[in-house]
Amino acid sequence: MTASSLVIVGSVAFDDLELPTGTFENVVGGAATYSALAASMLHPARVVGVVGHDYDEATLQQLAARGVDVSGIERAPGKTFRWRGRYSADLNSRVTLDTQLNVFADFRPKLPVGFRSATHLLLGNIHPALQLSVLEQLEGRPFVAADTMNFWIQGELSALQKLLKKVDLLIVNDEEARELSGIHNLPKAARAIAKMGPTRIIIKRGEFGALLFDEIGMFFVPAYPLEEVIDPTGAGDSFAGGLMGYLARVRSNEGMALRKALFYAAAAGSFCVEGVGPRRLFETTAAELRQRIASFVSLVDYGHSLDLS
Amino acid sequence: MTASSLVIVGSVAFDDLELPTGTFENVVGGAATYSALAASMLHPARVVGVVGHDYDEATLQQLAARGVDVSGIERAPGKTFRWRGRYSADLNSRVTLDTQLNVFADFRPKLPVGFRSATHLLLGNIHPALQLSVLEQLEGRPFVAADTMNFWIQGELSALQKLLKKVDLLIVNDEEARELSGIHNLPKAARAIAKMGPTRIIIKRGEFGALLFDEIGMFFVPAYPLEEVIDPTGAGDSFAGGLMGYLARVRSNEGMALRKALFYAAAAGSFCVEGVGPRRLFETTAAELRQRIASFVSLVDYGHSLDLS
Repeated sequence: MTASSLVIVGSVAFDDLELPTGTFENVVGGAATYSALAASMLHPARVVGVVGHDYDEATLQQLAARGVDVSGIERAPGKTFRWRGRYSADLNSRVTLDTQLNVFADFRPKLPVGFRSATHLLLGNIHPALQLSVLEQLEGRPFVAADTMNFWIQGELSALQKLLKKVDLLIVNDEEARELSGIHNLPKAARAIAKMGPTRIIIKRGEFGALLFDEIGMFFVPAYPLEEVIDPTGAGDSFAGGLMGYLARVRSNEGMALRKALFYAAAAGSFCVEGVGPRRLFETTAAELRQRIASFVSLVDYGHSLDLS
Repeated sequence: MTASSLVIVGSVAFDDLELPTGTFENVVGGAATYSALAASMLHPARVVGVVGHDYDEATLQQLAARGVDVSGIERAPGKTFRWRGRYSADLNSRVTLDTQLNVFADFRPKLPVGFRSATHLLLGNIHPALQLSVLEQLEGRPFVAADTMNFWIQGELSALQKLLKKVDLLIVNDEEARELSGIHNLPKAARAIAKMGPTRIIIKRGEFGALLFDEIGMFFVPAYPLEEVIDPTGAGDSFAGGLMGYLARVRSNEGMALRKALFYAAAAGSFCVEGVGPRRLFETTAAELRQRIASFVSLVDYGHSLDLS
């Protein structure tokens, strides 16, 4: 059996986060960063992205120390992508205060030779045309997941539809599922999206968990009810990363593997929100992951039988 | 082993329902009606309530035909409790247009002799002082569940606190849990409420499922993602009824029984919303219940192991 190879394409950024607990600037962020840190708890992750001159080597080394292959992160002239956002007191909503695309504006993902034989590919939220260009650089036929794509639904629908035909797993939130399908009811929306290409659809509902729709049927994973939530930034990206890290690790994309993967996805998301930026993901130990998974098992354990005697 | 005896105390009413699918008047309703119909899918339910001269005998017979003991429903001079509400197009919110308490205003629950040895008691949303009066009429010490109590939290806190000391299981929604405890975070809110008396707390979150907090820890049951929702009226009452019906049937209040009961609660809620008023609950067959439970099992089945190999 050949080893799995997981490639993650997406943004690498600095975030300025205005949280109820304080303002934190120059926090390492970006979808690819969160996804890769989450995935690397389970399987080495190879990142394709771009940074500017202001992104220091030491941070790349910290990522590498967590099992992230940073050789596909190119350094371009200019500044790193920067996002500034402010969260509401209950962390349930946020507003974007500033977006500076900087070097990300001209990002054209290039897969290093060693990345082209990927068995698992996670496409972060970049222009669908760029996502398609990544698929064209591949040598084999990996398991392809595409994460959240909000405004491309309105602006780039035809490129998106072309992409969806080549995606095995689409990960969206409930509003995106409704917008993409034009259907409010989620099981019906998922069925409509499946006709566009992806035979597996995950609908994320934040603190209310996530739903999977596939050939087996529907599956639900709860979000872990935490006592302390610090910063939701990157939770969705961590969810997608944890999911793909598990699938790469177990070398299976079958229905039951996908269901188990959803618990690792939810666990990664739950760690992510426990610290400012990706701090908690940088620190999570294998023992903590096992413990969190055990907590999830307890959260859904009803004894495996509901028969009426 | 003595047989279980489940008593349900609460409102019996007529509802006028303005739904997106049409307006339906004189629909049989009330918390006790929904709870009893749901419970009776699993175990005979004895109702204590009051109706007026306008509530016809044929409806009582229909309830009896479903396994509901209606001998504790007294008939008082005047009209039956009536509620009129209007739902939003997506059914996620509703406004009360009219409430006529009628004979329910002077309701003083009286347990028939045969009801006083109840092993399971579900107290619907009536004044806490009346709920306490029910407890005083009991001969034994049943398993006591109290359902949703919204405005008593603000208006009758001291009576409510007195009641809570005698309740084994409190069933509330998330806003009520927050209001009662003064704590936004649900796990922390549940811990605070446990100190007020009930060692088991269920927090209902509508279409997002429900959380149980007890000695074992936390447990989560999803709401079943339905393709067609017609009328949410009575879903919470049906949930509580299904739960208590299961517990009475299996004669156990232990942690794992409670977890299984939550699936029957969610199944009852899911049937309820599939028809106008309690129509669907009147019709549900044992085969349909088994099928719905099987669907729930599939919804949460991940193969019972999340070990990393």
